[in-house]
Amino acid sequence: MNRFSFNQATAKHWPMPDLVAGCVAAGVRNVGLWREETAAHGLARTTDLVRGAGLTVTSLCRGGFFTTPDRYDDNRRAIDEAATLGAPVLVLVSGGLPDGSRDLAGARRQVGDAIGELVPHALAAGVRLAIEPLHPMFCSDRCVVSTLGQALDLAAPYPAAAVGVVVDTYHLWWDDQVWDQIDRAGRDDRLACFQVADWITPLPAGVLLGRGLPGAGCVDLRRFRSAVDAAGYTGPIEVEVFHEQLWTRPGRDILDAAIAGYRDHVADGSGP
Amino acid sequence: MNRFSFNQATAKHWPMPDLVAGCVAAGVRNVGLWREETAAHGLARTTDLVRGAGLTVTSLCRGGFFTTPDRYDDNRRAIDEAATLGAPVLVLVSGGLPDGSRDLAGARRQVGDAIGELVPHALAAGVRLAIEPLHPMFCSDRCVVSTLGQALDLAAPYPAAAVGVVVDTYHLWWDDQVWDQIDRAGRDDRLACFQVADWITPLPAGVLLGRGLPGAGCVDLRRFRSAVDAAGYTGPIEVEVFHEQLWTRPGRDILDAAIAGYRDHVADGSGP
Repeated sequence: MNRFSFNQATAKHWPMPDLVAGCVAAGVRNVGLWREETAAHGLARTTDLVRGAGLTVTSLCRGGFFTTPDRYDDNRRAIDEAATLGAPVLVLVSGGLPDGSRDLAGARRQVGDAIGELVPHALAAGVRLAIEPLHPMFCSDRCVVSTLGQALDLAAPYPAAAVGVVVDTYHLWWDDQVWDQIDRAGRDDRLACFQVADWITPLPAGVLLGRGLPGAGCVDLRRFRSAVDAAGYTGPIEVEVFHEQLWTRPGRDILDAAIAGYRDHVADGSGP
Repeated sequence: MNRFSFNQATAKHWPMPDLVAGCVAAGVRNVGLWREETAAHGLARTTDLVRGAGLTVTSLCRGGFFTTPDRYDDNRRAIDEAATLGAPVLVLVSGGLPDGSRDLAGARRQVGDAIGELVPHALAAGVRLAIEPLHPMFCSDRCVVSTLGQALDLAAPYPAAAVGVVVDTYHLWWDDQVWDQIDRAGRDDRLACFQVADWITPLPAGVLLGRGLPGAGCVDLRRFRSAVDAAGYTGPIEVEVFHEQLWTRPGRDILDAAIAGYRDHVADGSGP
């Protein structure tokens, strides 16, 4: 279980202390945290809790949303929070089209410019910004970065130590170019974060909370795992699933199901 | 209004005779028809009705669904129906992943093979098969062909007279490679059908019936229109919008709204 990381959004309603205790009890060493939940429990308290339990924070979700007025201040705060938590990566969900705009290419350029503004702060804090391409169904309202190729293009002008990319199977599984782009990400040392969730249908209204646990859907998760490994990625593998029904289950049940899905559908043959 | 075509799915509940009379009254010369509606009214009756009114059928929706057991017989029937109606194009929605499969690349190859089986019948009937890439959110359950580039790759082995592609703004607007692929489609003489709908959010459950009338959303429709024109396309431009609320309006209202959206957001400056 060295590489397995439990992203807390998978058990959204699990209180932070129970999440930490549950992970320790299950032999899980890594967690991915979210800003809202961290703030609700208190940043310093969360840091102490997680460190005291011997857990590593593999990523903080999320910065980005570069169309909001306070985007620079808020993202600098997010970088600082990641640094405090010891999270090496801040996941960026870049935001959709500005209100009333139809200029998608322009919106994508603006994301790149905004990331550039944050690079000095990220380098100083020792936190890597990880551009996450989201599924094209989120293009207008959540994230204009829709493919791994676009994320890598946006990252390219900046040092790899400051800007990487996220490979999330849920968002990228449909893309026949993703394998070449994973290779490219490895060559360019941009692989900052690897998240797994499965694709299931029908999608719910709003399409945000319709992900499946590993193995529940149609994504060839092991092909992704092999591809990022072959590209030189040796970092954590986060299970991150949002689903309203899953969230109604007890946190420990969700964690156990995430571990089982990871073992059966993500981990390599030589053990997880 | 020479190029405007009203796809009947935009006013799904408008009875065929009313649709035809409404189009004539509005000065519309072209319609896109669906197999189910055509069968319900009767193929011969529909053919007579449409011809008698002086309307042109610009496309028939739809063939495809190549994972079904009777795919060859059913698609040959669809080709024959298109020929009877005088529709030059049969739109193909290729189908999702086979049940239980995670082999997306294999599913895409099978679509290409299935289309090849239909080519002789299509050529003999004088009906062009038009591969429609659907938005990646439909990849698992409706259509494994997700980009215009993939559609063109699948069409490439076959004569352009037999196999073309559909450019539908709703499905392709997020793709930064679509402009190059439209150019390629023009060079290869593959542009068989051009359909417009706008992207609006939030998406409804199931995501099928959430399209917007031209101008209601964030797609740069005129850029698409200019791109297909620049690629040499001179054919009809179908407005095809599926939306449950839109369908509750009287057919003539929907047609008028489609015409207005087309004039304001699709037609070129020199008149529609």
